[in-house]
Amino acid sequence: MLYSQLFGKTSKTAPADADCVNARLLTQAGFISKQMAGVYNYLPLGLRVLNKIQNIVREEMNAVGGNEILMPTLTQEENYVKTGRDQDSGFGSIFFRTEGENGSKLVLNPSHEEIVTPLVQKYIFSYRDLPQCVYQVQNKFRNEPRAKSGLLRGREFNMKDMYSFHTTEDDMNKYYEEVKKAYMKVYARLGIGDMTHLTYASGGVFSKYSHEFQTLSDIGEDTIYVCEKCHVAVNKEIIEEQNQCPECGNQDLVEKKSVEVGNIFKLRAKYSSAFKFNFLDEDGQEKPVEMACYGIGPSRLMGVLTEIFHDDKGIIWPEAVAPFAVHLVALGKDETAYTEAAKLYNELQKKGVSVLYDDRREVSAGAKFADSDLIGIPTRLVISPKTLEQGSVEIKKRNEKDYQLIKTAEIGKIF
Amino acid sequence: MLYSQLFGKTSKTAPADADCVNARLLTQAGFISKQMAGVYNYLPLGLRVLNKIQNIVREEMNAVGGNEILMPTLTQEENYVKTGRDQDSGFGSIFFRTEGENGSKLVLNPSHEEIVTPLVQKYIFSYRDLPQCVYQVQNKFRNEPRAKSGLLRGREFNMKDMYSFHTTEDDMNKYYEEVKKAYMKVYARLGIGDMTHLTYASGGVFSKYSHEFQTLSDIGEDTIYVCEKCHVAVNKEIIEEQNQCPECGNQDLVEKKSVEVGNIFKLRAKYSSAFKFNFLDEDGQEKPVEMACYGIGPSRLMGVLTEIFHDDKGIIWPEAVAPFAVHLVALGKDETAYTEAAKLYNELQKKGVSVLYDDRREVSAGAKFADSDLIGIPTRLVISPKTLEQGSVEIKKRNEKDYQLIKTAEIGKIF
Repeated sequence: MLYSQLFGKTSKTAPADADCVNARLLTQAGFISKQMAGVYNYLPLGLRVLNKIQNIVREEMNAVGGNEILMPTLTQEENYVKTGRDQDSGFGSIFFRTEGENGSKLVLNPSHEEIVTPLVQKYIFSYRDLPQCVYQVQNKFRNEPRAKSGLLRGREFNMKDMYSFHTTEDDMNKYYEEVKKAYMKVYARLGIGDMTHLTYASGGVFSKYSHEFQTLSDIGEDTIYVCEKCHVAVNKEIIEEQNQCPECGNQDLVEKKSVEVGNIFKLRAKYSSAFKFNFLDEDGQEKPVEMACYGIGPSRLMGVLTEIFHDDKGIIWPEAVAPFAVHLVALGKDETAYTEAAKLYNELQKKGVSVLYDDRREVSAGAKFADSDLIGIPTRLVISPKTLEQGSVEIKKRNEKDYQLIKTAEIGKIF
Repeated sequence: MLYSQLFGKTSKTAPADADCVNARLLTQAGFISKQMAGVYNYLPLGLRVLNKIQNIVREEMNAVGGNEILMPTLTQEENYVKTGRDQDSGFGSIFFRTEGENGSKLVLNPSHEEIVTPLVQKYIFSYRDLPQCVYQVQNKFRNEPRAKSGLLRGREFNMKDMYSFHTTEDDMNKYYEEVKKAYMKVYARLGIGDMTHLTYASGGVFSKYSHEFQTLSDIGEDTIYVCEKCHVAVNKEIIEEQNQCPECGNQDLVEKKSVEVGNIFKLRAKYSSAFKFNFLDEDGQEKPVEMACYGIGPSRLMGVLTEIFHDDKGIIWPEAVAPFAVHLVALGKDETAYTEAAKLYNELQKKGVSVLYDDRREVSAGAKFADSDLIGIPTRLVISPKTLEQGSVEIKKRNEKDYQLIKTAEIGKIF
């Protein structure tokens, strides 16, 4: 992509209403643009990052047998009446509501248990059709009283939600453990595996625990108690009753600030009972389907990654989700450097390396470097009259201080 | 994908409320599931087709320099007050409305002119920043009084909407012609190029014509008048004033039924004026930006393709959008055929050929063939004790009557 043709340029001034690093940097670097509190436009750079995060999540969900589907935003309110969640003082109060034909009551889905349960029910009749697991990557709508912290707490935000269906609690438990591992693989691929803790949380009526995935961060709204031996944690909500590590019994838990980057629940028969979603077992008995659900927010993760990977100059994207692999910068008043840069741009693209090429003629070297640091692409290549004199290209990693000169003929071999 | 693990199976009975072929076949074949009138769930097979259509559209929009972005569903009503479209008797009446914080009025965007204009305005200052072109693939919400015809007229439906911004009418006109060609490339790739006509339609206040793309179909709600020399048409709305071919003057136009599969408009300064979106020209003069917009509906196209490409047994997907390239069917009571089929399944997948493998043991050959015809994957391969006796695999194209036997060792060479 030529930077001159890219839509959404960097800005020197921080948005006045940015209350946190991710809102500020992602806006200034031209990744997102705020529509209203908790609702954002994704510009080309931002959409590329969002897609990369989504695809990592997809790959790991596919690897555990998830079937990707796509459910709608609009749903009849009656689905929520069946589960009683329309009356839930917390959940029911964040519904965005609208009206369809003849004043029929509709909800913009804040979650999809009430849609996926009757949907899967249509295709499952006997134990032979189970287990089954479906997921989607879709937008959720929640009228949060306080939308804030940029992409961390949105009113319209992106979510991967997966739902699994089983004949027995045992089978559900086994699959739940598999998905736990899949989640940790996602965080590892995003570069936040070490700082992300499986965290024991309240399980509600149906199970002892649910599990959150909490990433250590000073801007986190959550407090967790980490067992440094097991890499797991306990959340604040249950720390009084669960004041030791649930895995090793260690009582020396360390209080830390964190941000939630995923959560998984054993739903058991909560939703299948509400929708009378039963199946015929091998012995001909009708039984309710056992369910679990697994959520992870790609747009929130984009915000979390920005909070964690940045310095005072801008974002420092992990390679796995960077909008481009290489930021190629050409400098100088005459065309020589631009001609050479265009050649390298084409050569790298032919090799399948994604390149953002800053081809602007009227912009100073200083401004180009500042933009490159702000945008945060992992590798910067510079071609200038000075580097050309030495038949070289300057290469610098965004997360390192030093740069090196590499012979132009050798550059292709690195990628 | 193993058919036994695929979510969303075929059904022998047509849905009672299906009012057209696409709703019936896509539902029976397990591609979509209705949530409510005009709102559908996409099951794995359907989502694969939708993604393929979207990606063809993306590739052609990228080829004409479109920058992909993603705008939100929720927007402040005040954006529509600025353009007066909230009061439009047609357009304003199909808004889904909701409320945000403190009762603030929000709209679920039925289109995105009111969002994209102020968004692009943030990044365009002078003639140097123009032209610019952005697009998105996103869902639209329209409370149509009569949602019907399956995916053809939805209340929540998928749309690619592109918007271009220019310094002069001339530059806009030139780009508009380029996009016309890009649209025809999309239809050609979808296999409906020959039957899709560029159709002259009313241009509104700002230009003489707008243009629709109309695909001939008996279930179409539109009537067009085709010039068979030029492959263009005139729509019913303007046929009285424009009763000859606008390109060659031919007066012998042929009346036909059709369905709209795209439309493009020269917006001129309609929206840029409403948002005071001006730019500084080379001579320092402030001028309103010239705009055009370009819409195409991937979910509607999925419905249209089903209407056009089917027979009494099911869907016949064009290769470019088929959910899988190969439908592999294993038959027989003992495991031999399944073992051989599993080998072929792995071999083809290694080659990058997408395969749906019907590995069900308890289902009859007849039922498997019926499912395969209903789902409509272009190439069917059958392995049975009978074909194995001859060291062969049976191959049959969905759109041909005859099948052939091909030596197992040769199958890999075909793909």
